[in-house]
Amino acid sequence: MSRLSFNTMTADRWSLAEVIDACAQYGIEWIGPWRHKLAELGVEEARRRIDAAGLKVSSLCRGGFFTAPNADEDNRRAVEEAAALGTDVLVLVCGPPATKDLQAARDQIARGIERLLPYAIEHGVRLGIEPLHPMMIGERSAIVTLGNALDIAERIGEDGVGVVIDVYHTFWDPQLPAQIARAAGRIVGYHVNDWLPATQHTLLERGMMGDGIIDLHGFSAMIEAAGYVGPVEVEILNPAIWDLPRDELMTLTVERFERCVL
Amino acid sequence: MSRLSFNTMTADRWSLAEVIDACAQYGIEWIGPWRHKLAELGVEEARRRIDAAGLKVSSLCRGGFFTAPNADEDNRRAVEEAAALGTDVLVLVCGPPATKDLQAARDQIARGIERLLPYAIEHGVRLGIEPLHPMMIGERSAIVTLGNALDIAERIGEDGVGVVIDVYHTFWDPQLPAQIARAAGRIVGYHVNDWLPATQHTLLERGMMGDGIIDLHGFSAMIEAAGYVGPVEVEILNPAIWDLPRDELMTLTVERFERCVL
Repeated sequence: MSRLSFNTMTADRWSLAEVIDACAQYGIEWIGPWRHKLAELGVEEARRRIDAAGLKVSSLCRGGFFTAPNADEDNRRAVEEAAALGTDVLVLVCGPPATKDLQAARDQIARGIERLLPYAIEHGVRLGIEPLHPMMIGERSAIVTLGNALDIAERIGEDGVGVVIDVYHTFWDPQLPAQIARAAGRIVGYHVNDWLPATQHTLLERGMMGDGIIDLHGFSAMIEAAGYVGPVEVEILNPAIWDLPRDELMTLTVERFERCVL
Repeated sequence: MSRLSFNTMTADRWSLAEVIDACAQYGIEWIGPWRHKLAELGVEEARRRIDAAGLKVSSLCRGGFFTAPNADEDNRRAVEEAAALGTDVLVLVCGPPATKDLQAARDQIARGIERLLPYAIEHGVRLGIEPLHPMMIGERSAIVTLGNALDIAERIGEDGVGVVIDVYHTFWDPQLPAQIARAAGRIVGYHVNDWLPATQHTLLERGMMGDGIIDLHGFSAMIEAAGYVGPVEVEILNPAIWDLPRDELMTLTVERFERCVL
């Protein structure tokens, strides 16, 4: 329970202030905000409220989109916001390929991360490459396997670049056990939720832990064996979850985290 | 054009008889039927009409679902139907995991293929393991990468087991070039269509060749370099394609195949 972090996406219809209050009320110690939520209050006021509630910030979601115009400038702002918020992890969603040449897209992403890295180090923020599920390649990320994220992190070779592992994006991979072991020392975030067996929508059908087909205990054991013992973010994009009454969502999140995850 | 095969799924709302007539009219030499279409006419009548139209059968879709009850019996029927239809390839969609243990599911699938193999060899039918996109793991296939399909084919080690490579299911994979090269001599089918960039539905949004983000010419070059020069099935599951008028669908399929694929 002391490792549970509530990612604001799990209650995307609430204001940031409401999420902060709910976490404090339910004894959650960590919060993982998205930048569109920060924008509601401004970073300084958000930091003040998070501190006042006794919460720590596990990461900021998200920088990245290295294949878009003006990515560098926006990513420097994201690094500044992470530092101002008091977290040392910026999650990177790397962006879709700009052309049909996927290798070129992956190289472009690696160069974008390299360009951002000195600024991140200067601000005490580690960059966490998050591989997304291959079904998100067209709109969100050309980085679709943990192996590919590690290829980039290892090529750059600095401590300031690591990986964020989300069970939803990676559980299907036959190479997962080997790649998690390879990630030892580079894991800067771990996200949990579940894969619902009858998934039809590529973005909005993530499940609550325990409602799907992912072996979460087995997954967490691999993450722990690779040395990661930091906060674990619950991140669920799903209108059916967003529609739950406040107390039901918080109680369910805490209960399922305790029963299904570690 | 002499390699174009029309998979019946591309016109799933037409009867098999209508698909056969359309292929003959538009100068297509190959057809790839699904079993639910065969059932309309019965295998013998289907064979008679396909022969009469001067068509060859590139493969039968599908056997597999090795994790389901009675899979063995249904798969022997599928082998018999393939042989009766005069094709030497049965496409295998391997089935979802029965439990959260994905390695166990993959082992169960490998054993199911091994059990079916002698019967397939006896009937002159090769088994083609088709890895599906990882987003289809919950309902259709625990085999989600070409590498994993090749692991199984190589472990069994018989000529009677190969792989069917569909661009849609595999294009996202950073290991694709290496795995296609590894597949040399084991490729028994090649399926084309496209990945639409704004894909939201996990099953029914496959695109017409040229409408999406897959480098089809590059993909085909790798397939050819690996030695596969057989029929190329156009397989598109998409209600927007199914709704096209008959002549528009056929003309478009032929035109896009000639312009975008080989």
